[in-house]
Amino acid sequence: MKTSLDCLPCFLRQSLEAARFITDDPGVHEQILRQVLRSAAEMDLRQPPPVMARIFYRRLSEMSGLEDIYSPAKDRFNRLALALYPEIEKRLERSRDPLETAVRLAIAGNIIDLGSNCDLEDSRVEEAIESSLVAPLSKSAVEDLRESAGRATSILYLGDNAGEIVFDRLLIGQLPRQKVTYVVRGSPVINDATMSDAVATGMTDLVEVIDNGSDAPGTILETCSAAFRRRFQYAELVIAKGQGNYETLSETNRNIYFLLKVKCPVIARHIGCDVDDLAMLRRS
Amino acid sequence: MKTSLDCLPCFLRQSLEAARFITDDPGVHEQILRQVLRSAAEMDLRQPPPVMARIFYRRLSEMSGLEDIYSPAKDRFNRLALALYPEIEKRLERSRDPLETAVRLAIAGNIIDLGSNCDLEDSRVEEAIESSLVAPLSKSAVEDLRESAGRATSILYLGDNAGEIVFDRLLIGQLPRQKVTYVVRGSPVINDATMSDAVATGMTDLVEVIDNGSDAPGTILETCSAAFRRRFQYAELVIAKGQGNYETLSETNRNIYFLLKVKCPVIARHIGCDVDDLAMLRRS
Repeated sequence: MKTSLDCLPCFLRQSLEAARFITDDPGVHEQILRQVLRSAAEMDLRQPPPVMARIFYRRLSEMSGLEDIYSPAKDRFNRLALALYPEIEKRLERSRDPLETAVRLAIAGNIIDLGSNCDLEDSRVEEAIESSLVAPLSKSAVEDLRESAGRATSILYLGDNAGEIVFDRLLIGQLPRQKVTYVVRGSPVINDATMSDAVATGMTDLVEVIDNGSDAPGTILETCSAAFRRRFQYAELVIAKGQGNYETLSETNRNIYFLLKVKCPVIARHIGCDVDDLAMLRRS
Repeated sequence: MKTSLDCLPCFLRQSLEAARFITDDPGVHEQILRQVLRSAAEMDLRQPPPVMARIFYRRLSEMSGLEDIYSPAKDRFNRLALALYPEIEKRLERSRDPLETAVRLAIAGNIIDLGSNCDLEDSRVEEAIESSLVAPLSKSAVEDLRESAGRATSILYLGDNAGEIVFDRLLIGQLPRQKVTYVVRGSPVINDATMSDAVATGMTDLVEVIDNGSDAPGTILETCSAAFRRRFQYAELVIAKGQGNYETLSETNRNIYFLLKVKCPVIARHIGCDVDDLAMLRRS
């Protein structure tokens, strides 16, 4: 999807939050914000928002000298999700339709998106779990996923954020997991999951994990490795988590299930739902 | 007060709302937003936010060929406030301390600020009235105003928005009104009250009304007429309504009472209160 004009004020806010994340120096905050304003003034709005975000976070990383700015936050949310795991796993085991419940929980985990909300509190994650279990979700989409996953010989599961990756384990546990390959970003960007998060959360013990070779907070195919692009091309079923993957792949001509927690009005309008909804969409 | 970095995303949002107010053409929205991004990148942050807003709204007016972009909205809120007037006047008459109640209602009227919220619904105005009657308000500040108004030989009341001006009539009715001069902006900007609003709402029948000669959404003295500046210099007591007047006069060395509904976190931080609070402050 294209970048909406409404993305620009939001992008500016994100940039300021990120600048404050790396330093307390107001002079640096101002310098970063002025750079973002200049870049945004020339931005190609036909591109999806992660194109601009990728450039911005790369520059921020260079300016700060920190390769992985959000590393402490990623560790924190991995630990939180692992602490919550035994309890939510029990709830999944008790549920009447474990696949549906696992989809709900995997979407709940997508609340852990520090691009949307830099100050996410632990309690918001717990609230997202509770609300996801009762929120509207298309039964037919779940049935469709069940059938597609049964039929497919290979499933590519595109992860989104650290912390959230623990919730993805629950859903992968309900899929024919020998067919599943989990994908993380190639380099750190915001709090998106990379290989170290896959290792830290036990994902690598469960399924094959590969990285996509890119540092975009989404899946911009041109920035991904040839190896990933080949896997993407030949996978019979793709499951893509989160807003960044939706923004970058929603117009791709592939059999993709998008699972995301809707966190902004631009995405809500694009999908045709409300902010805070659980979205499970098939584009094929 | 200076412009905060947090003002910039908000200013971008306001600009986009204003652009959508003048046309449905997305090409024009984009053109306006890119101009704002370029200007914001070079902005002098030592100036208060209305300095930038003044330049922006003037350009918008030139681009649209409309001298008074928000004219229909101003008429709408003047009519709404006049329709509510008889009922709130009755509540004022029944109150134990009419001056305090009038201060509360005058602050409630400050919700009609289309810079803060372009899509303000009528119901929000009615809610603001109800909440203002029970919200915390400093008793001693009200007593202080009562005494100062009694002592002063001249009171300059700096208005803010159309619609809100009707609520100001209630407060002026509780002051020694022969001493009061009401001030409107010199030219249209956002939904700020100008002379035509003072006429339409009966303010000109109540007290002397002058304009400040400026098209800023606040009181930037250098942009005001010499006649207004003289009045401002010699007034013994100044009452200034709204965020724009606060932002531009909070560091002026004068005896000023600021009355405003706090609508943004930057102002809340500057004052030391919460968003949605009623603020009654004296700077002297």
